[in-house]
Amino acid sequence: MRVNFPFSAIVGQEAMKRALLISAVDPTIGGVLVFGDRGTGKSTAVRALAQLLPRMKVVAGSAYNIDPAKSDDPDVKTRQMPVPVVDLPLGATEDRVVGALDIEKALTQGERAFQPGLLAQANRGFLYIDEINLLEDHLVDLLLDVAASGENVVEREGLSIRHPARFVLIGSGNPEEGELRPQLLDRFGLSVDVSTPEDVKQRIEVVRRRDAFDRDPEAFVAKWKRKDGAVRREIVGARERLEGLEVPDAVLGQAAELCMALGTDGLRGELTLMRAARAFAALEGDAEVTGDALRFVAPMVLGHRLRRNPLDDSRASVRVERAIEEAMG
Amino acid sequence: MRVNFPFSAIVGQEAMKRALLISAVDPTIGGVLVFGDRGTGKSTAVRALAQLLPRMKVVAGSAYNIDPAKSDDPDVKTRQMPVPVVDLPLGATEDRVVGALDIEKALTQGERAFQPGLLAQANRGFLYIDEINLLEDHLVDLLLDVAASGENVVEREGLSIRHPARFVLIGSGNPEEGELRPQLLDRFGLSVDVSTPEDVKQRIEVVRRRDAFDRDPEAFVAKWKRKDGAVRREIVGARERLEGLEVPDAVLGQAAELCMALGTDGLRGELTLMRAARAFAALEGDAEVTGDALRFVAPMVLGHRLRRNPLDDSRASVRVERAIEEAMG
Amino acid sequence: MRVNFPFSAIVGQEAMKRALLISAVDPTIGGVLVFGDRGTGKSTAVRALAQLLPRMKVVAGSAYNIDPAKSDDPDVKTRQMPVPVVDLPLGATEDRVVGALDIEKALTQGERAFQPGLLAQANRGFLYIDEINLLEDHLVDLLLDVAASGENVVEREGLSIRHPARFVLIGSGNPEEGELRPQLLDRFGLSVDVSTPEDVKQRIEVVRRRDAFDRDPEAFVAKWKRKDGAVRREIVGARERLEGLEVPDAVLGQAAELCMALGTDGLRGELTLMRAARAFAALEGDAEVTGDALRFVAPMVLGHRLRRNPLDDSRASVRVERAIEEAMG
Amino acid sequence: MRVNFPFSAIVGQEAMKRALLISAVDPTIGGVLVFGDRGTGKSTAVRALAQLLPRMKVVAGSAYNIDPAKSDDPDVKTRQMPVPVVDLPLGATEDRVVGALDIEKALTQGERAFQPGLLAQANRGFLYIDEINLLEDHLVDLLLDVAASGENVVEREGLSIRHPARFVLIGSGNPEEGELRPQLLDRFGLSVDVSTPEDVKQRIEVVRRRDAFDRDPEAFVAKWKRKDGAVRREIVGARERLEGLEVPDAVLGQAAELCMALGTDGLRGELTLMRAARAFAALEGDAEVTGDALRFVAPMVLGHRLRRNPLDDSRASVRVERAIEEAMG
Amino acid sequence: MRVNFPFSAIVGQEAMKRALLISAVDPTIGGVLVFGDRGTGKSTAVRALAQLLPRMKVVAGSAYNIDPAKSDDPDVKTRQMPVPVVDLPLGATEDRVVGALDIEKALTQGERAFQPGLLAQANRGFLYIDEINLLEDHLVDLLLDVAASGENVVEREGLSIRHPARFVLIGSGNPEEGELRPQLLDRFGLSVDVSTPEDVKQRIEVVRRRDAFDRDPEAFVAKWKRKDGAVRREIVGARERLEGLEVPDAVLGQAAELCMALGTDGLRGELTLMRAARAFAALEGDAEVTGDALRFVAPMVLGHRLRRNPLDDSRASVRVERAIEEAMG
Amino acid sequence: MRVNFPFSAIVGQEAMKRALLISAVDPTIGGVLVFGDRGTGKSTAVRALAQLLPRMKVVAGSAYNIDPAKSDDPDVKTRQMPVPVVDLPLGATEDRVVGALDIEKALTQGERAFQPGLLAQANRGFLYIDEINLLEDHLVDLLLDVAASGENVVEREGLSIRHPARFVLIGSGNPEEGELRPQLLDRFGLSVDVSTPEDVKQRIEVVRRRDAFDRDPEAFVAKWKRKDGAVRREIVGARERLEGLEVPDAVLGQAAELCMALGTDGLRGELTLMRAARAFAALEGDAEVTGDALRFVAPMVLGHRLRRNPLDDSRASVRVERAIEEAMG
Repeated sequence: MRVNFPFSAIVGQEAMKRALLISAVDPTIGGVLVFGDRGTGKSTAVRALAQLLPRMKVVAGSAYNIDPAKSDDPDVKTRQMPVPVVDLPLGATEDRVVGALDIEKALTQGERAFQPGLLAQANRGFLYIDEINLLEDHLVDLLLDVAASGENVVEREGLSIRHPARFVLIGSGNPEEGELRPQLLDRFGLSVDVSTPEDVKQRIEVVRRRDAFDRDPEAFVAKWKRKDGAVRREIVGARERLEGLEVPDAVLGQAAELCMALGTDGLRGELTLMRAARAFAALEGDAEVTGDALRFVAPMVLGHRLRRNPLDDSRASVRVERAIEEAMG
Repeated sequence: MRVNFPFSAIVGQEAMKRALLISAVDPTIGGVLVFGDRGTGKSTAVRALAQLLPRMKVVAGSAYNIDPAKSDDPDVKTRQMPVPVVDLPLGATEDRVVGALDIEKALTQGERAFQPGLLAQANRGFLYIDEINLLEDHLVDLLLDVAASGENVVEREGLSIRHPARFVLIGSGNPEEGELRPQLLDRFGLSVDVSTPEDVKQRIEVVRRRDAFDRDPEAFVAKWKRKDGAVRREIVGARERLEGLEVPDAVLGQAAELCMALGTDGLRGELTLMRAARAFAALEGDAEVTGDALRFVAPMVLGHRLRRNPLDDSRASVRVERAIEEAMG
Repeated sequence: MRVNFPFSAIVGQEAMKRALLISAVDPTIGGVLVFGDRGTGKSTAVRALAQLLPRMKVVAGSAYNIDPAKSDDPDVKTRQMPVPVVDLPLGATEDRVVGALDIEKALTQGERAFQPGLLAQANRGFLYIDEINLLEDHLVDLLLDVAASGENVVEREGLSIRHPARFVLIGSGNPEEGELRPQLLDRFGLSVDVSTPEDVKQRIEVVRRRDAFDRDPEAFVAKWKRKDGAVRREIVGARERLEGLEVPDAVLGQAAELCMALGTDGLRGELTLMRAARAFAALEGDAEVTGDALRFVAPMVLGHRLRRNPLDDSRASVRVERAIEEAMG
Repeated sequence: MRVNFPFSAIVGQEAMKRALLISAVDPTIGGVLVFGDRGTGKSTAVRALAQLLPRMKVVAGSAYNIDPAKSDDPDVKTRQMPVPVVDLPLGATEDRVVGALDIEKALTQGERAFQPGLLAQANRGFLYIDEINLLEDHLVDLLLDVAASGENVVEREGLSIRHPARFVLIGSGNPEEGELRPQLLDRFGLSVDVSTPEDVKQRIEVVRRRDAFDRDPEAFVAKWKRKDGAVRREIVGARERLEGLEVPDAVLGQAAELCMALGTDGLRGELTLMRAARAFAALEGDAEVTGDALRFVAPMVLGHRLRRNPLDDSRASVRVERAIEEAMG
Repeated sequence: MRVNFPFSAIVGQEAMKRALLISAVDPTIGGVLVFGDRGTGKSTAVRALAQLLPRMKVVAGSAYNIDPAKSDDPDVKTRQMPVPVVDLPLGATEDRVVGALDIEKALTQGERAFQPGLLAQANRGFLYIDEINLLEDHLVDLLLDVAASGENVVEREGLSIRHPARFVLIGSGNPEEGELRPQLLDRFGLSVDVSTPEDVKQRIEVVRRRDAFDRDPEAFVAKWKRKDGAVRREIVGARERLEGLEVPDAVLGQAAELCMALGTDGLRGELTLMRAARAFAALEGDAEVTGDALRFVAPMVLGHRLRRNPLDDSRASVRVERAIEEAMG
Repeated sequence: MRVNFPFSAIVGQEAMKRALLISAVDPTIGGVLVFGDRGTGKSTAVRALAQLLPRMKVVAGSAYNIDPAKSDDPDVKTRQMPVPVVDLPLGATEDRVVGALDIEKALTQGERAFQPGLLAQANRGFLYIDEINLLEDHLVDLLLDVAASGENVVEREGLSIRHPARFVLIGSGNPEEGELRPQLLDRFGLSVDVSTPEDVKQRIEVVRRRDAFDRDPEAFVAKWKRKDGAVRREIVGARERLEGLEVPDAVLGQAAELCMALGTDGLRGELTLMRAARAFAALEGDAEVTGDALRFVAPMVLGHRLRRNPLDDSRASVRVERAIEEAMG
């Protein structure tokens, strides 16, 4: 099994790390888009997060990682497994993604059985797509559809199957290699930009840590084990606090004003602002969701939902900040 | 089984809700097109309507939901089932839509049998296509053809099959993602636009209800059960009243004047105006179909049948209103 | 079995109805093209004509509707069947149109047999293609080829088959959705334009009849049965009179002058003028084919054979009328 | 079996008829291209020629129409058959043209056998392609290659087959529907243009004969039998005289001057001029090939070999005539 | 077996004949490209050369024409065979070219065996492609790769095969029908242009010989047998002399100056100049490779390696001649 | 087995040779891109390097060349094999590259087994792609992904396989035949340009050596055996020294300044600078990595990572040199 670079050993990149933690606390927020140049550690961070999440309980033998709490059988057998982080490799075919007719069974037993695909494997975990802008639009569409509905509906090759497929979609991309359609952007919950650090010392630190890890991964991971444990406890605590956290009407009103000022489509922006602020507050251990939490998450919730404004070519983050100033004082 | 958001808990969006009810009262009106931004609750409304329709009686074991009233056998066994609302998932293949050779039977028993597709499942119910503008033209064509004739004619892979396929086609789409050809538009019975509410209080209410539903769907549905029941009774009553409602020549004359003033092609506009006004009057409990009913349904019947007028770029609804003023005083 | 709208209940549309009757009297005239907006009842008329034609005698068990009169066996068993009107549904594959290897027999009996296609079913009847301009050019080409030669030649998948396939090809289309190539146009025998009536009373009558038919098809058909019977007798009589009708040289000369004046290619125009005038005269019960018959059929025979004239953008029918005036005085 | 229109009943079209006869006398001249509008009787002429050629002797049971004179077995069984005229129907697949693996044998007997295609059927006869400009370039290329080499070389699906395939390729086309590449044109031996007669009497005669044939083919053919017999004897006689006919150096020199004056590529023009003039002289019963024979065939040999001359847009035939005047006085 | 036109009966075309002989003497020189109009006898020459080469010894039963001298088994059985000249017919599929899974064995014996393709057949001989510019780029690439490495490496359908495939690639093409990419041109060893003779007498001679051959191939070949024998002995002698021929440094230096003056890429030009001059000298029976031999072969070695020079649009051969004057005085 | 041209007999081309040696010392540096004209010996060098590397130990019977040191079984059987240098032939299909379902086993034993592909064969060795710019983008992407992760993840045809695939990717290309996307360039570790020598003596030497090798490969290789042995010892020594070599912070700081001055994306440039300088120092036998080592490797590490600068069209190497001057004095 592959050893990953530890989450806590990542130098800088605070926004990206925080967005990933928020999505781990409340997966209904929707996927995370990470934009940035190659070589800035996007893939590393996603794989690192996967590694530190607590293990989960599943029905033994289930191809879909079914939660025993949702089983009708009180005596169902269970097992523990790590939170799945499924990679969508370049060149994966649609049949492997959604599942397909099990050819082996069809040929040997003349029987039409379903062979679950990557969406089944990813249930209750993460689905990671590096360079999502290189993926064909119809596959991205399909993945976002499934991620939103939490169900994989397969109607092909004489199969008619439905199975749970709740996962957080993480896409990383390089905006220079082709853009996502606005309609796809809008369906991701959060987005963050990562960039290469400008500070020489920090750069040397990144290179040193990477070289150390590549030369002896096990030793390096052991060195950062304690810090990774602390992050894991932070997530678990936040998940527990989440249920009890209220979002006051005043904060929701501010969220609405903000979205109207920025002209985002529909109400997904507001719903996500509310949830991300709540998850952020839970991570911070706050007693209530405040305007400050909203302020913190607004750029990552709204940055990718802005329409291009021909009279204002400021970066998305600047426009969000300005709208926050105006809407929230 | 998936629990849907209750129809009566939808905030605002009156035109869309009314159009869906009209199509439920008289399915021969043709499908409904719902245009609007993402995140405005289009899919939610369709699934909600499905949930509140009364159950229907079918021939037991029928793959096509055959109505026992149309069976020759007086002793045919029947069963109750919910009105089917079939989803056309992105990536569904034509063979799953129209049905195809049953490969399993072909391989194991060397026999050419038909495996019914989604069109068979949708008989006597609804077929829902989210983002209909992303569907390939030839599939849309095919669906509209079947919806219009009420029959699915399959001539492929050595099969020659015909089966009933009467359903209401509901398409939702985002006009920014690509347009439907005028010739396809014209074959939908009704169309409505939905948009994000501009009122902060209403927005907060939408977000709160959605969050409440997502956190505990069963509890939320239970809370709105009584209101949904009232809507169901409204539909059932209207269906019964429909047969007896007459459309006076004067009203038909106004419908003709309106269509001629707007220059819609053929006579589908008038036929649909007559039927939609009749269904609307039935829902309202009116004794007769009046000019007011015509006035109410005209925008949703005619809005998508206008030709682009290079000298008048007003929105379709404005042009329809103006024509109503002129034609009906 | 589907009940069709009665031919005699069609309001107006005299040219279209007459062209269909002419093709039913002399099928060697070639197909009929019906141009017009959606919703003008094109499909309705074709299906209606099919329903009122007299039944025909075929060799029992023949997959090609073989005429017993052409069988070598004097004791061949026969059966009666309605004149076939085969629909070419959108999405029909070439193998279903021309016929193909019978996969079932190939797999189960290791034998290469031919499974007849729609062209076989259509022998001695009608093949109807709605929206012929949406059909791929190579399929249209193929259909016209077969219609012209009266034979279906299949050379594919190791099959080498020839069978009779004499049918009248009826194509309906909307000129706004794409044009047919001039070379294809020219191979249809007749063409007519249909349009929406401009008269309010007539429009109301159309809508009322359609609504009445949709609400209770059987009752509506019963009401028009007698009138449909009269049309059927008109066709049968005309077929009998056809053989004896002579076309005088003077009329043929006028036909040639007309074609030369209009610059139509080849001699198909003249041959069709002669045949259509003869069939028209037969329907009218005339003793001889006169210039008046020629005058009547000229627009439907020649309208679609005109070349585009950059200096004269009058409608085809106007140009034909003008040429008639000049050529025939 | 289909009855064809008699060759001798064709009204006018002398150049086309002569070119076909020349190719029947000396098949090594290469194919014939017939250009012209639809409805000018191109297909009719080719099928008519086929019908009047004398029957030929083949090795009994041969799939390739092998000439018994070329068999090593002196006691080989033979049979008579009509000269094959193979139609290449629109939609014929490459495997049916060149031949392919015999799937039936492969599946039932696990054996790789060759199933001969249309090229095998056409050996020693004619291959007719209506609308050759609609055929895919690679198929035309392939057909011309085989026609030129007299051999069909198949290297596909594990088959490695060579069989004789000597035939005259006849292509008819409408120049308005797309052009042939100059490189393909050049490989046809002869080309002729056909057009609609301008004379009213002649047009009436064509229409009357066609109508008479369509109404009673057998009677019509019987009426022209004697005249067709005369043409057949003309061909047989010419074939016999061909061997003994010398082409004087002076005539060959004129052919060379003509080709150089017109700038045709390579020496195919001259070789074909020599052969066509010889066949023409043989048909005429001349004792020697003279300049007059050369003059007669030059337009049909060279018309399609001219390069487009931007300074001289005269029709090809005019340019050939002019060059003849200059080269031959 | 096909009888070919004799090599020695080809009228004129000295450069082409010499280039073919050089490639026959030293096959490592690389393929020969023959450019020219259709009808100039390109294919004829290649097939003629094939016919006069001495027969070669191969391991009996070898699918790859293995040289017994390279076998480890001293008692290996051998047989004689003509030098293979494999034609790549238009429409040959990649699997037949490189070889492929033997489907017959796979189906009947469930075994994965290799069925050798045309590259195997061509080993130690010639591979001839008429109209190489019509071949798909990737096939040309593949053929040049194999020709250069002398090995066919197959990695497809689960096969992993390598077999010797040393052959001279002869490509003929018409520059008007599409160009080869410069990078492909450069990989051919030699190139020659052929054109139609301008001399009337020579033209008559060509036409006469061709007609004589077509009328009675066997008699014609017999007439030229002795002259073809002389050419064969010339090749055999040159091959023997080749080993002992030295190329002085002075000549190599001139070759380098020439290539640098012309700006050809890499050192392939020089290597080929050296080898072609050596083979030419061997054919001439020279004792040493001199500047004259270099001068003779330079146009055919370098003509197709020149880059387009926008300031000098002289024909390639002129530019090579000029460079020779300058570099070699 | 093919005999390759000896590495030490390559004339000149020092940068290319050094880059290949560096990648052989530290394979984690990433692949090497070799740009240059055809005929400059790119392929020769790669194959030559392969031949002189020391043999490696693998688990006996492993399809993936597994290192016995990484096996859990202390008694695992091992064997020696040459370092694999796998060629990706033009036309290799994706299934052969990544591996695929073993069709033979599937058909004969009804079992779904994996047949390893070229990526498995290349594990712990080199994967060589000649003309990488002709390869389809998605295959290049896939190869770079696998090379970077060291794992081949296969999700297709119902297979879900992961196996080690650590190799050095060597791509050679001709920039005139199409460019690689900047994002692909950036993922190669090193790049070098090769060009034809301008010196006549050197050119003669290259041609002579090549001719000598082609005439008698074994003798030529024997002659250079001792020199190749010396290079091999150099590599082995450098690999041993690598572990102990430290890169001082000052040198890393210079690397960072250099990358920032040149504006390369991400930190891959720095990481590669550090590793390449270390490997270079190891080859040189230096006690420490110094600025000089950095200076030497900088052009080959950074040359292909520069963005196009519209104001500075100097060649990449010039821009790197200038930046070195500025950043390192």
